[in-house]
Amino acid sequence: MNFGSDNTSAVAPRIMEAIQAANEGHARPYGGDALTPVVEARIRDIFEAPEARVFLVTSGTAANALSCALLTRPWEAIFCHRNAHIEEDECGAPEFFTDGAKLVLVEGEDAKMEPQALRDKIRHTGAAIHNIKRGMVSITNATEFGTVYTVDEVKALCDVAREFDLPVHMDGARFANAVVRLGCSPADLTWKAGVDVLSFGGTKNGCMGVEAVVVFDPARAQEFEIRRKRSGQLMSKHRYLAAQMMAYLYGDLWLLLARQANAMARKLADGLASLPEVRMLHPTQANAVFVAMPRHLHQKLHDHGAYYYFWPFDQDLEGDAEEVLSARLVCSWSTTTPEIETFLGLLDWVAPARSLPEAPRSLAPQEAEPDPAQHEGSR
Amino acid sequence: MNFGSDNTSAVAPRIMEAIQAANEGHARPYGGDALTPVVEARIRDIFEAPEARVFLVTSGTAANALSCALLTRPWEAIFCHRNAHIEEDECGAPEFFTDGAKLVLVEGEDAKMEPQALRDKIRHTGAAIHNIKRGMVSITNATEFGTVYTVDEVKALCDVAREFDLPVHMDGARFANAVVRLGCSPADLTWKAGVDVLSFGGTKNGCMGVEAVVVFDPARAQEFEIRRKRSGQLMSKHRYLAAQMMAYLYGDLWLLLARQANAMARKLADGLASLPEVRMLHPTQANAVFVAMPRHLHQKLHDHGAYYYFWPFDQDLEGDAEEVLSARLVCSWSTTTPEIETFLGLLDWVAPARSLPEAPRSLAPQEAEPDPAQHEGSR
Amino acid sequence: MNFGSDNTSAVAPRIMEAIQAANEGHARPYGGDALTPVVEARIRDIFEAPEARVFLVTSGTAANALSCALLTRPWEAIFCHRNAHIEEDECGAPEFFTDGAKLVLVEGEDAKMEPQALRDKIRHTGAAIHNIKRGMVSITNATEFGTVYTVDEVKALCDVAREFDLPVHMDGARFANAVVRLGCSPADLTWKAGVDVLSFGGTKNGCMGVEAVVVFDPARAQEFEIRRKRSGQLMSKHRYLAAQMMAYLYGDLWLLLARQANAMARKLADGLASLPEVRMLHPTQANAVFVAMPRHLHQKLHDHGAYYYFWPFDQDLEGDAEEVLSARLVCSWSTTTPEIETFLGLLDWVAPARSLPEAPRSLAPQEAEPDPAQHEGSR
Amino acid sequence: MNFGSDNTSAVAPRIMEAIQAANEGHARPYGGDALTPVVEARIRDIFEAPEARVFLVTSGTAANALSCALLTRPWEAIFCHRNAHIEEDECGAPEFFTDGAKLVLVEGEDAKMEPQALRDKIRHTGAAIHNIKRGMVSITNATEFGTVYTVDEVKALCDVAREFDLPVHMDGARFANAVVRLGCSPADLTWKAGVDVLSFGGTKNGCMGVEAVVVFDPARAQEFEIRRKRSGQLMSKHRYLAAQMMAYLYGDLWLLLARQANAMARKLADGLASLPEVRMLHPTQANAVFVAMPRHLHQKLHDHGAYYYFWPFDQDLEGDAEEVLSARLVCSWSTTTPEIETFLGLLDWVAPARSLPEAPRSLAPQEAEPDPAQHEGSR
Repeated sequence: MNFGSDNTSAVAPRIMEAIQAANEGHARPYGGDALTPVVEARIRDIFEAPEARVFLVTSGTAANALSCALLTRPWEAIFCHRNAHIEEDECGAPEFFTDGAKLVLVEGEDAKMEPQALRDKIRHTGAAIHNIKRGMVSITNATEFGTVYTVDEVKALCDVAREFDLPVHMDGARFANAVVRLGCSPADLTWKAGVDVLSFGGTKNGCMGVEAVVVFDPARAQEFEIRRKRSGQLMSKHRYLAAQMMAYLYGDLWLLLARQANAMARKLADGLASLPEVRMLHPTQANAVFVAMPRHLHQKLHDHGAYYYFWPFDQDLEGDAEEVLSARLVCSWSTTTPEIETFLGLLDWVAPARSLPEAPRSLAPQEAEPDPAQHEGSR
Repeated sequence: MNFGSDNTSAVAPRIMEAIQAANEGHARPYGGDALTPVVEARIRDIFEAPEARVFLVTSGTAANALSCALLTRPWEAIFCHRNAHIEEDECGAPEFFTDGAKLVLVEGEDAKMEPQALRDKIRHTGAAIHNIKRGMVSITNATEFGTVYTVDEVKALCDVAREFDLPVHMDGARFANAVVRLGCSPADLTWKAGVDVLSFGGTKNGCMGVEAVVVFDPARAQEFEIRRKRSGQLMSKHRYLAAQMMAYLYGDLWLLLARQANAMARKLADGLASLPEVRMLHPTQANAVFVAMPRHLHQKLHDHGAYYYFWPFDQDLEGDAEEVLSARLVCSWSTTTPEIETFLGLLDWVAPARSLPEAPRSLAPQEAEPDPAQHEGSR
Repeated sequence: MNFGSDNTSAVAPRIMEAIQAANEGHARPYGGDALTPVVEARIRDIFEAPEARVFLVTSGTAANALSCALLTRPWEAIFCHRNAHIEEDECGAPEFFTDGAKLVLVEGEDAKMEPQALRDKIRHTGAAIHNIKRGMVSITNATEFGTVYTVDEVKALCDVAREFDLPVHMDGARFANAVVRLGCSPADLTWKAGVDVLSFGGTKNGCMGVEAVVVFDPARAQEFEIRRKRSGQLMSKHRYLAAQMMAYLYGDLWLLLARQANAMARKLADGLASLPEVRMLHPTQANAVFVAMPRHLHQKLHDHGAYYYFWPFDQDLEGDAEEVLSARLVCSWSTTTPEIETFLGLLDWVAPARSLPEAPRSLAPQEAEPDPAQHEGSR
Repeated sequence: MNFGSDNTSAVAPRIMEAIQAANEGHARPYGGDALTPVVEARIRDIFEAPEARVFLVTSGTAANALSCALLTRPWEAIFCHRNAHIEEDECGAPEFFTDGAKLVLVEGEDAKMEPQALRDKIRHTGAAIHNIKRGMVSITNATEFGTVYTVDEVKALCDVAREFDLPVHMDGARFANAVVRLGCSPADLTWKAGVDVLSFGGTKNGCMGVEAVVVFDPARAQEFEIRRKRSGQLMSKHRYLAAQMMAYLYGDLWLLLARQANAMARKLADGLASLPEVRMLHPTQANAVFVAMPRHLHQKLHDHGAYYYFWPFDQDLEGDAEEVLSARLVCSWSTTTPEIETFLGLLDWVAPARSLPEAPRSLAPQEAEPDPAQHEGSR
């Protein structure tokens, strides 16, 4: 019952096999190996973007920070949600890689920027020589709160960016979870909507440590290549990054893995939402579930081996048993139905029947899972 | 016959097995896994440094640039050899990670700094408010030209640094090759000689992609940890870095692998030095061989499948067959005796008997390989 | 009737005379002249801080950004008010000089941070390795909205900073206006309250272009000196900066100049507050007045030669005459009573009698000007 | 007898008068004053460059570092002479403002780069992804050793830069001295020769503290404006910078001042060269004289009040009286004939007749002063 993060999970078997298979003889370093161009070709294919350039790096923070550096100048603003990963969880990597750009925070429920709030922030920025200038927009999809922007919502944000001629980055550390949720094509959710650069996550979804930065405009590619090297992210034994990504993409494994993670989160959310003492904090649209429940429940779960984080972190198990604490539970490709059932059974056993004031939002009809069949067809 | 670089080699079998073995169940991310503290303990043991802190990163460039950032301020000088990797091959990563420190280049034969040349450069730096200030010294061992500083030579450079109260970094991307060459203890070659921070390489010597930064002064550790995160080098699925390093250290595998690489380079160098048309450019003390020979010989070797780089790069196979071109040939843990023999046999077949003016330096007595038995004893 | 900014005013006569008087013969550059140590001694005296170090620079942005760089590391947070000059008007200079620190914005009315809001922001920052770390606090006094923190209010913020062991910077571009308002000693408002570094403004209050950075802890001085040089702020003909500052401090000219500016702003505010169509936006405690009034009044004033800025800037004279627009009017040492009277007379002439809903806050008793006699005594 | 530096001199009277004349009433800040556009127009006129943009800053270090930042990216090389001011005397400002570019040092006598040495350095740079990339060339004229590049020599260096499509900066802190020496037009020495951005010095030649950065390509101007603000170099009371520059340019005052400085240096050099114990170190082509002479002569001169620096600094008056020490003597607009004559008379009195081995180079015919009449005609 480990729901700490999707990065506590192991490497998916097929990906580990690919790593081993790549371990044969010599290979040219720095992307000169035979697999790397195949990965690029495959990603171009998946994204219907024959001109796109693809760069593999080893961490999501590097992928995001390099993307920001590519799209912005040091005196410019990066518009993102207040709860974006680049704002909250990268220890200032975007500021480091951009040589000092400023993250300007946009509001919106469930970690999703409101288009009008974005427009207002952009408009307010850069009027005079004394102000920082307008730089770029960064959208996280799926979001840090386990919600997903629809294609139309992404498009609406990109349209705002275009009003001001700003480029758009998508932090897709959980891009697969968003695509699975929406049943859309990767192209529709990215460049067709107006995204210029995508951090296409692998690590959280079954890889060992690889993210692909997809640069849809090839004119920007050379600078990215230099920045990757300069930041220590050009791996010499590059074939092992390529092998992971190859296996990840082959046979739509990336979607299969994400589908499992999302389904388990859905099952977990449904179970939790039915409990009177539990309140859902955000709609469960990807692989993370956010709930509030009394401390005594957390205590019991922890006592029985359940592992997850309070969210925000600054809560703990000491204190009044009735006090409500919030938490994040993340499912991954390796989460199983028995794990969910054990967890929910445990809760069912300890949770006394008492209702909470607010109705769980996650049951609202507009958040129904899309028809998987329809999705398969669209792939 | 691939002598392009040690990073064209595959992952050593035992290391690959360890990666697979780590692929079981959940593990806490970011170094919270069970293996990481064991790796740290093992490195402390090997280096006889119970207070040292160890940080795993994914590339040698990151290891070096983070070490420089730890030891210097943005307005300070990093004293290093003109041919240091941080000067020539990291696309400005040290400048990036340090926020603008200046590399001040020190002369010396065979990519080894002369102590007096180092002292002069330091003395010349930082006299007035208008000048950059004295920052740190960085020593590469084994060097970029396949030579090795002895323990006494490292000590002499560290002593110069100490005269000015400057910390010392060692770029040990090929540290194993140096230790094997010298038959010394890792402690003697580092902190006992005066080194403060070591980039302890794994990737070039059989790992997939891991370097350990060993910070001998624990007071500096917290800042390193922050800088690692901020630069996108704190891996979430950290157990796979730890597993590589664990296997690398276990049973002194790292020394076994380096011993093979060095021995193959020695065999290659001896063969080459005996050929009349070939001139040795630097003593072969680690796993790289630098030679000059006529273009027609390079042509033949390439025609028969030998792979290596001209060094410097700006030479090519077009031109006068008699013109002498220089080249670097690197052996790795996976280089085999038949490979060397095939290569030398090929040369023997094509090289007409004609002598070159200068005697090969690599045959000088002071460069004899240390007695392996004595070395085994010291381990 | 120029109320655009205090920096539209000329240089005060005595300061200009001092510049001329300095223009005699040779003088050692870079602060080696005879005047510079006298300035330092005088500032130490005024601030009752015999250990303080003083550095002259040419602009307020440089003074602030260098101070931030001195007190924070690149991965740390600078806690300041949402409307601080360093956040809104320096085009990212703090991010540039600090190599990428992040400004974390604290709320509070009238551009003054609330201590509890500050505490909450600090507490929320830096919990995990993934977050930026706690760095420093920057307090602007007088604020960007023409209000003034009392000594106790500054102390309360510094106490919060001390809870977390954070250093405190004060942006005192209008420090003189605050001191005059409060009738306190410079020491009480700075280091005795807990301020570590002060940007002591000269330019806005009658100088030509000089700010003194007062570093109360001499241990930090050497780094400041290096940073000043490295940022192009160490002036070669330093005597002309010293001469300005000397004259500014001599005979408490700095306080006389600020007293005039504040008095004129008070007169202007009182006149405006009595008009039915005008609403005061912030208490007038220093030399700036913030008002809202209908567009038709702005139009009339502009037609008759009044000069000031809409605040925020993104308003203009086109549109519905009845719509209310806000503006900032700044008085300086050179503003005269006739200027104010002409302006108010003009308004009186054009403003029809019609009341606004909210009572002007600037008339509240707690904002009464301190007794000047008492102030004189304390000097 | 102060020959310490040209920046020990006072402000030229006409320039000081202009500062005072500007001190009347209000003026829009940040370059919005009436004088600033006139300065820009005048500089365009002088440089025959109607499209050029002009930016005033307060120091030469800022002018140079901002120019470098404008013309290079953080991962690129700035090619300059080993003795350039940006390399030796700016405490890393170029690295700071460029976010980490690397200065690559080019050799050449008398602080002048050799075109072939420049070409070789450029060629050697940026071949592979691992190397820093080719960025820009920076030429100092007049040089740090008091020599001057001719128009043809500047052109030759710019041509090398153009071979590689690199922009060129000229550090013209002593540009006036170079123009006076050459009798050429400012346009010929800059954009017509291939210079893209000029640091046009004022401070060393009679101004108080102002340098004009002339950006010949207006497409680059907006970025410069932002960088100037962001570095704290956009002065609020900008009229006082403009007034200095206006007076400096009016009636070719800048050339008159430089002519005096050069003539005095010539007189000084001629006198020194005739002394048997004195050896000239560099040709005297601008306003600085470099000589070597025995310590006892230095001692006498210092005892009688002569002031100048040993060059390099790390020499002193203690030691063997016969030992030869080198020094730099700089003349400025305010140096007078009696000062020179007193100095030379003093030397003549103390210098025993004894010859030095090398003939003074400054007497060579190719270094004859150009015909002033011809120069006047070209102005």
